Amino acid sequence: MSKDSLFIRACKGEQTERTPIWIMRQAGRYLPEYRALREKYDFLTSCKTPELASEITIQPIDIVDTDAAILFSDILVIPEAMGMHLELIESKGPVFSEPIRSIGQIENLETDETLSRLDYVMQAVKMTKEKLNGRVPLIGFSGSPWTLATYMVEGKGSKNFDIIKSFVYNEPESAHKLLQILADSVVEYLQAKIDAGCDAVQIFDTWASILSPADFEEYSLKYISYICDNLQSKGVPIIVFAKGVGSYQNLAQLKCDVLGVDWTKELSRVRAEISGRKALQGNLDPTVLFAPKEKIRKETERVLRSYGEGGGHIFNLGHGILSKTPVENVQYLVECVRELSSK
Amino acid sequence: MSKDSLFIRACKGEQTERTPIWIMRQAGRYLPEYRALREKYDFLTSCKTPELASEITIQPIDIVDTDAAILFSDILVIPEAMGMHLELIESKGPVFSEPIRSIGQIENLETDETLSRLDYVMQAVKMTKEKLNGRVPLIGFSGSPWTLATYMVEGKGSKNFDIIKSFVYNEPESAHKLLQILADSVVEYLQAKIDAGCDAVQIFDTWASILSPADFEEYSLKYISYICDNLQSKGVPIIVFAKGVGSYQNLAQLKCDVLGVDWTKELSRVRAEISGRKALQGNLDPTVLFAPKEKIRKETERVLRSYGEGGGHIFNLGHGILSKTPVENVQYLVECVRELSSK
Repeated sequence: MSKDSLFIRACKGEQTERTPIWIMRQAGRYLPEYRALREKYDFLTSCKTPELASEITIQPIDIVDTDAAILFSDILVIPEAMGMHLELIESKGPVFSEPIRSIGQIENLETDETLSRLDYVMQAVKMTKEKLNGRVPLIGFSGSPWTLATYMVEGKGSKNFDIIKSFVYNEPESAHKLLQILADSVVEYLQAKIDAGCDAVQIFDTWASILSPADFEEYSLKYISYICDNLQSKGVPIIVFAKGVGSYQNLAQLKCDVLGVDWTKELSRVRAEISGRKALQGNLDPTVLFAPKEKIRKETERVLRSYGEGGGHIFNLGHGILSKTPVENVQYLVECVRELSSK
Repeated sequence: MSKDSLFIRACKGEQTERTPIWIMRQAGRYLPEYRALREKYDFLTSCKTPELASEITIQPIDIVDTDAAILFSDILVIPEAMGMHLELIESKGPVFSEPIRSIGQIENLETDETLSRLDYVMQAVKMTKEKLNGRVPLIGFSGSPWTLATYMVEGKGSKNFDIIKSFVYNEPESAHKLLQILADSVVEYLQAKIDAGCDAVQIFDTWASILSPADFEEYSLKYISYICDNLQSKGVPIIVFAKGVGSYQNLAQLKCDVLGVDWTKELSRVRAEISGRKALQGNLDPTVLFAPKEKIRKETERVLRSYGEGGGHIFNLGHGILSKTPVENVQYLVECVRELSSK
């Protein structure tokens, strides 16, 4: 059963017979089977229809054979459930037509019924668990409050993130109010996912990467910490992936089990920096999957060797898989991890 | 005279009476005087006309009162001088109409006369030195081979940099050939700038930020190292700014004087990591200049305190100044650095 799976045991820092692997955004556009489904249904419809979400979630398990499934969804379903109008066009990135720019808008967020409006996610979790039937564990996820707020305030992709940062610097009280609302929603949301059957949960803080260490602590880490402290995880591992941070020392103090690491870091250095207090997940450069097989194998070996001996490594990319990635290279990566880590 | 300036002494790690400051992209769009000139002349014309380039270089010295000038130019003048057609539209970012995708194109780069086609830069250096008349030192700069190659191969802005990375992974020999051509050109170019009178030179490696540690070493650091080894610097400080790297240990072994640090790092940690072997330059988050004055002051103090006591700190932003930055906030930053670092 999945509770004793390689993936769960590695999350808990246990020694495993080989290194488990899953891939961020593994249920996505690089799979022809996914693209075929998406020709019939748009992105939000696919998220909101448990039959579709569960089918998409399972595609990479069948095709790529990863050691964990991650529920097909999007981090922005939370602000959408709070009443913000969201357009999700994968080629353009997400767009909120009325981004948050004032305390009035924050006060108008529909926070009372957020969780019940996200019931489709819990239905998808249950349906996926049935379909998986114990083959591999199921990961549920959420954006961090900071990353969600960044999208909600910027409204669309940004190069310099000057709108969100001007907002937090000029209206820190409003910013903290928004972040606390989001932190409470994320606790409720991840708790409901755990209660619905998720075997692990991951908090994505993609936009940790744009903050100075002091701002990261004030505007992001504080709220991730609140979430970890308030989840009744019942032994379900919590993974925190803060992309682009300069140091992992503060993250190592979180009540979580695993830290995700992006590909610009050396796993050996991160492991030493935090004295092995957390399991680590990562960290192959996603573009290596465009390389010839020898390079994929060599880089896989490098990542495994960098983590080194002992339990507590979950192989993954250092960020989400890119949509033009050849499927056979992903399959080859999974084979390489299996073979090289069992030696 | 500028040779004994605060800035030069700080680059050499000497204790100074206060911390010098200059600002990456200080001669640029946030200045109304710059925008007024640019209404009359396009970007490349401004770079290529020594009268204009020198006038623009001096604008921030008059208006913001920084402790060093940096020659107004662009890193992409090198590939342009090699015959690549370049469009520089500041709102869109640079575009090469025929990006490099084959060894044939690399072999066709016009490398024989590159330096003589860049003579306008040397004329601008001489004219600026005359106009500065010793007020502050003049910094010349170049892109690193890796960063130049990234622009030349991608051809325009990228989100995932899959084109350049696919190129180096699939055609490593061609990639190394291109990088070596660029490294030789950068040596020539920076040498000519030093010989024309620049008081310091900076190598910008913006796209260090997209590489894994192993790829950074192979595709970028190796060539920066070659440049530092081959420059006859005659005591002119060399500054290397590799944005977004996970570690500074390898950079500390370069034959350079100063390492630039982006704003996601704690200066105290970088200083400890490299055991103080280099002076450090940085690292205020550029968006802090959109904050109220109290926040600007507080963050300035934090950066100064993070570096700590002793010489060898050059205050700067952690990346280029943003074009919508209010000028009065830049002036206030300079005042804060002067006041707080003289205490």
